[in-house]
Amino acid sequence: MKKTALIMAGGRGERFWPRSRRNLPKQFLSLTDDGKTMIQLTVERILPIVDLEDIYIATNKDYRNLVKEQLPGLPDENILCEPVGRNTAPCIGLGAVHISRKYEDAVMYVLPSDHLIKFNNMFLTVLKDAAEVAEKGDNLVTIGITPDYPETGYGYIKFRPDVMEGRSYEVERFVEKPNLEVAKEYLATEQYLWNSGMFTWKISSILDRIRTLMPDTYAGLRKIRDAIGTPEEDSVLEKEFFAMESQSVDYGIMEKAQHIYTIPGAFGWDDVGSWLAVGRIKKTNEAGNVVDGNVITVNTHDCIVQGQKKLIAAVGLENMIIVDTEDATLICAKDSAGDIKKVLENLKICHRDEYI
Amino acid sequence: MKKTALIMAGGRGERFWPRSRRNLPKQFLSLTDDGKTMIQLTVERILPIVDLEDIYIATNKDYRNLVKEQLPGLPDENILCEPVGRNTAPCIGLGAVHISRKYEDAVMYVLPSDHLIKFNNMFLTVLKDAAEVAEKGDNLVTIGITPDYPETGYGYIKFRPDVMEGRSYEVERFVEKPNLEVAKEYLATEQYLWNSGMFTWKISSILDRIRTLMPDTYAGLRKIRDAIGTPEEDSVLEKEFFAMESQSVDYGIMEKAQHIYTIPGAFGWDDVGSWLAVGRIKKTNEAGNVVDGNVITVNTHDCIVQGQKKLIAAVGLENMIIVDTEDATLICAKDSAGDIKKVLENLKICHRDEYI
Repeated sequence: MKKTALIMAGGRGERFWPRSRRNLPKQFLSLTDDGKTMIQLTVERILPIVDLEDIYIATNKDYRNLVKEQLPGLPDENILCEPVGRNTAPCIGLGAVHISRKYEDAVMYVLPSDHLIKFNNMFLTVLKDAAEVAEKGDNLVTIGITPDYPETGYGYIKFRPDVMEGRSYEVERFVEKPNLEVAKEYLATEQYLWNSGMFTWKISSILDRIRTLMPDTYAGLRKIRDAIGTPEEDSVLEKEFFAMESQSVDYGIMEKAQHIYTIPGAFGWDDVGSWLAVGRIKKTNEAGNVVDGNVITVNTHDCIVQGQKKLIAAVGLENMIIVDTEDATLICAKDSAGDIKKVLENLKICHRDEYI
Repeated sequence: MKKTALIMAGGRGERFWPRSRRNLPKQFLSLTDDGKTMIQLTVERILPIVDLEDIYIATNKDYRNLVKEQLPGLPDENILCEPVGRNTAPCIGLGAVHISRKYEDAVMYVLPSDHLIKFNNMFLTVLKDAAEVAEKGDNLVTIGITPDYPETGYGYIKFRPDVMEGRSYEVERFVEKPNLEVAKEYLATEQYLWNSGMFTWKISSILDRIRTLMPDTYAGLRKIRDAIGTPEEDSVLEKEFFAMESQSVDYGIMEKAQHIYTIPGAFGWDDVGSWLAVGRIKKTNEAGNVVDGNVITVNTHDCIVQGQKKLIAAVGLENMIIVDTEDATLICAKDSAGDIKKVLENLKICHRDEYI
């Protein structure tokens, strides 16, 4: 069966401020040594198994031009612009109705645009295995990540080790982000995977589930589908999308549906959740620093220093994140990376939109 | 007797990098909340007891224009440009020969241009007391600072508590920077003062000492004096100054001469030796931060953040120095302030003169 992909690129993440901005979110940034942006890497990664004309990008209309610039070979009509963010269920539904007009049925991979994967071949093998499971009946397959440590920032998937379908396991339930103690228990049972937010299913399977489990959303998607290619396409999309309930596919579909499978992956996945990830992703020098740009370090260790043209001199520092941009410089202790959002809150309160 | 002053402003200090540069050293920077530069404050401070036309600035010729800009009322001929730095003895000699052409004799205050004084009235009282001692015979008076703590970065003056002249004590000897243990002993004896590098003497007294203790320097100064106002003034100054031995007045004169007195001062003296001084000088907010410019702090304590136009966001920091300028930003742990010079060494080695 034909393989297609929907790459979700509508996020407005704030955790890479000041490099990421409202008009340049994380998926459009280069955070790796190869200079490619996150979304470019995401597309490149799946090209061996999905043709470029079958890759769809769901994004906010503000980012249409960024997508066009960064993915110049992508057909224009494959850029799906959400008039407003309504979480993943409507986004995936929009992708599915577009693909359903092109193919009677197809396998649909759903992938975030801002994760990194170290072992690409292993990742592709998992995607192929997932497609095999998805092609049977109306199975919905979520890709689970074999956990390395008791992370408390992710949701988990509990699977039934004794109920397999191909290389996947039946999902018993999805669980919210646990506390550390619970996360440790999960790890010990060996029956939990991290929920990566990557999915594989047939277009028919997912649309059928939206119809039965989210009937209002489905009705809206039908109207959008009927309007595609007509003069009313934009206005119908706008009207119906605004009216839709904001809902994640996890909560709206996966937690309620039958025939949910998970396939464990151990392909060096990283959700690149904060500047700390850059310390894992990029080359580290002998002093433990990750340094880019015009930077001098003196007696400085285990720091992330992302300079540009301006000279950054770091003296006697440890475990710091320094990020310089044209109009703003962040200096942040590594263990305070979660507080970067407070800078943005402050900027919002003060209406200093030029920095957001 | 007429009171005159020589303000020494030839220093090229590197400890306020990146704000201070080779073409804008510390004495021309504003480091206080009032916005005035160090040299402006130094001149303003003594105006109640020395007329502006009797204040001379000794500086490097590269800084002539900076002096003119920052001290617009000062007569042009009061800016004495050293062709090359030859330490304090030739500098003071140059000032003395200029003043000796204007007055048959006069009291000469010698002051660094880059120190701060908190209690100005007390300082002026000390200067007046020092002048009284200096006017008698050929006494040379150095202003000592009553030490607050066992500083190891200053030289000390040992005085004879039982040999007074007016409000000053006879100096027994000058001692080099001590180690901590020795500095503690000095403090305990109550017979040691910090050597501030501020002096009071008559023109006749200092020139006579140069003549007897530094005869070669004196010979050069005589030639310079004779050429003042002639077409050869600049060429003679250049030739003689280059030929002079580089020598401090402490070593060349004070440690060898008779009739040396010190007058203790406790007027809130600060030599503003590094960025740490800014934490003492400027207003500190509730979080213990000294903040200027376009700065947002989140959970940040006891930091010095000197921003300008660019937004500086400091998150989760403690005891840090952050200094932003047009083309360079310093981020330095407070206890590594002494390592800022290593940044400059690095820049010199790499011939990156634009940053020096």
